[in-house]
Amino acid sequence: MIPDAECLKVIHEILTALQVGDFLIKINDRRILQGIFTICGIPEIKFERICSTLDKLDKISWEEVKNEMILEDGISPECVNCISEYVQLHGGPGLIEKLLKDPKLVQNRLAMEGLEDMKLLFEYLTLFGIIDQVSLHLSLARGLAYYTGVIYEAILLCQKHSHLNESLSLRSVAGGGRYDELVAKFDSKGHKVPCVGLSIGVERLFSIIEQNNEKIRTTETQVLVATPQKNFLTFKMKLISELWNAGIKAEMLYKKNPRLLEQLQYCEETGIPLAIIVGEQELNDGIVKLRDVVTRKEVNIPQENFIEEIKRRLEKYNT
Amino acid sequence: MIPDAECLKVIHEILTALQVGDFLIKINDRRILQGIFTICGIPEIKFERICSTLDKLDKISWEEVKNEMILEDGISPECVNCISEYVQLHGGPGLIEKLLKDPKLVQNRLAMEGLEDMKLLFEYLTLFGIIDQVSLHLSLARGLAYYTGVIYEAILLCQKHSHLNESLSLRSVAGGGRYDELVAKFDSKGHKVPCVGLSIGVERLFSIIEQNNEKIRTTETQVLVATPQKNFLTFKMKLISELWNAGIKAEMLYKKNPRLLEQLQYCEETGIPLAIIVGEQELNDGIVKLRDVVTRKEVNIPQENFIEEIKRRLEKYNT
Repeated sequence: MIPDAECLKVIHEILTALQVGDFLIKINDRRILQGIFTICGIPEIKFERICSTLDKLDKISWEEVKNEMILEDGISPECVNCISEYVQLHGGPGLIEKLLKDPKLVQNRLAMEGLEDMKLLFEYLTLFGIIDQVSLHLSLARGLAYYTGVIYEAILLCQKHSHLNESLSLRSVAGGGRYDELVAKFDSKGHKVPCVGLSIGVERLFSIIEQNNEKIRTTETQVLVATPQKNFLTFKMKLISELWNAGIKAEMLYKKNPRLLEQLQYCEETGIPLAIIVGEQELNDGIVKLRDVVTRKEVNIPQENFIEEIKRRLEKYNT
Repeated sequence: MIPDAECLKVIHEILTALQVGDFLIKINDRRILQGIFTICGIPEIKFERICSTLDKLDKISWEEVKNEMILEDGISPECVNCISEYVQLHGGPGLIEKLLKDPKLVQNRLAMEGLEDMKLLFEYLTLFGIIDQVSLHLSLARGLAYYTGVIYEAILLCQKHSHLNESLSLRSVAGGGRYDELVAKFDSKGHKVPCVGLSIGVERLFSIIEQNNEKIRTTETQVLVATPQKNFLTFKMKLISELWNAGIKAEMLYKKNPRLLEQLQYCEETGIPLAIIVGEQELNDGIVKLRDVVTRKEVNIPQENFIEEIKRRLEKYNT
């Protein structure tokens, strides 16, 4: 359970660092689910199908899922009611203790294995200090057939996203689990390799962060070398080379003679914090014009000091 | 030519940063080569084949290449002699000027285009301050058929590698060029997209650095949490979690009860600079033992200060 706990810690770290607000990581175990299905009298051949139907719970209501199980998956209403009793449960270590004593579940070896491991996992998550954002949800199924043990899914809870439509704000932003039999299916000798893995919903998280009006930069450029002059390439390339050699991330527009406004707009759009502006006048005076893109303030700096001055400012921006 | 110059600057930066000693970037242009082949009377259909044969020059001698052109590629000795005169030339801007006035080459439009661009490229490389490591080599052909313009290859020259066999020390460690027609071949509408690209011989560079007895770390782990005690997992996980939360890269061995020696050897083999050792005694005394893996010196540190002390030491190591 240590690698499983580490995966959950990784998800927790990422979602915390992204500052997307409160989140909850729902956990379950395929073995517990299979145990529940077995004691509710569902034939093994239907397990995968029922998992897929259960997985729709984040899109449709429990009533609709129940109907689909009865009408489409061909499960009897009694069996569905039996499943219903279990899958609506969620909680922490207390729930695990209760389930470990459940008179029906104790008869299922697989479910007991899953619950014992879940107990251990919650101990590790306590040591990692992330127990408050984690909860056992017996309804969590995950769509993919290859999971064999612990499964998890992270959802955002925060009020911060109340302006988003609910389906987006509640949908999963990370997920994963254990899949101990997947490698053997592809290995010519059928060697079993235990695996854990997780995925982060990068696109979804980006769109949430963007909807909070935070701009995400797609480049790391720190300085744009710009000019109002035509045919000023040579001097721009000399300056850019000096910036690169000093370890500063610099670029210029490839376009032959872009207008100065276009070059400054490019900085504002892409979040480049500093621009160096050079023209005939600056070249003759031995200076460069340094522009703070956000405040639009410009200062003249002697050419021999410009690298130092830029470094000093970048330290301040911490970019 | 700006993107081409930038690629060469990137290769130069990487090889300089890796400190693998002196290197030379050979440059040529497919258009210049094709011009030479044309004026030497080689049919166009054989251009690709001749490029492949020329490309063997870093493995076999010019005499052997000549023989292969005559015997295998079916080129007449006169044509081969004509090629020979050109492809043995190498140099800088002076050679470019000379070739621009070459009475046979001036009649070939493609060669003149290539030479004019080469002249411009050398101007940019001068601005970027990397001209001393770059040289026009008319024998450089590169094996791949898709290049359409400038091509280049970097080789190591340094005495530092004299203990390697010569073929390894002289073989290419980076290469690239312009391929303006490759995208159109795969685009359903045949849109032409100009491209430049380069590759770095990572495996070859690694083996050269390793043969210089410099160890290359494959992980960034800064601290290993170790214990001589059996069943000490809980305390180890608590400490590792504190380290992670402080932004320190920490790990422990997954093996259930590894011997202490094994844990310390793991640090030495993988270059982890620090180890924390905790056992019954340390737990009771409220301390952790901090070991400098290189010097093997150990000090006891109060548990409440251990994060700070580790941070202080890591800053010193600058890892």
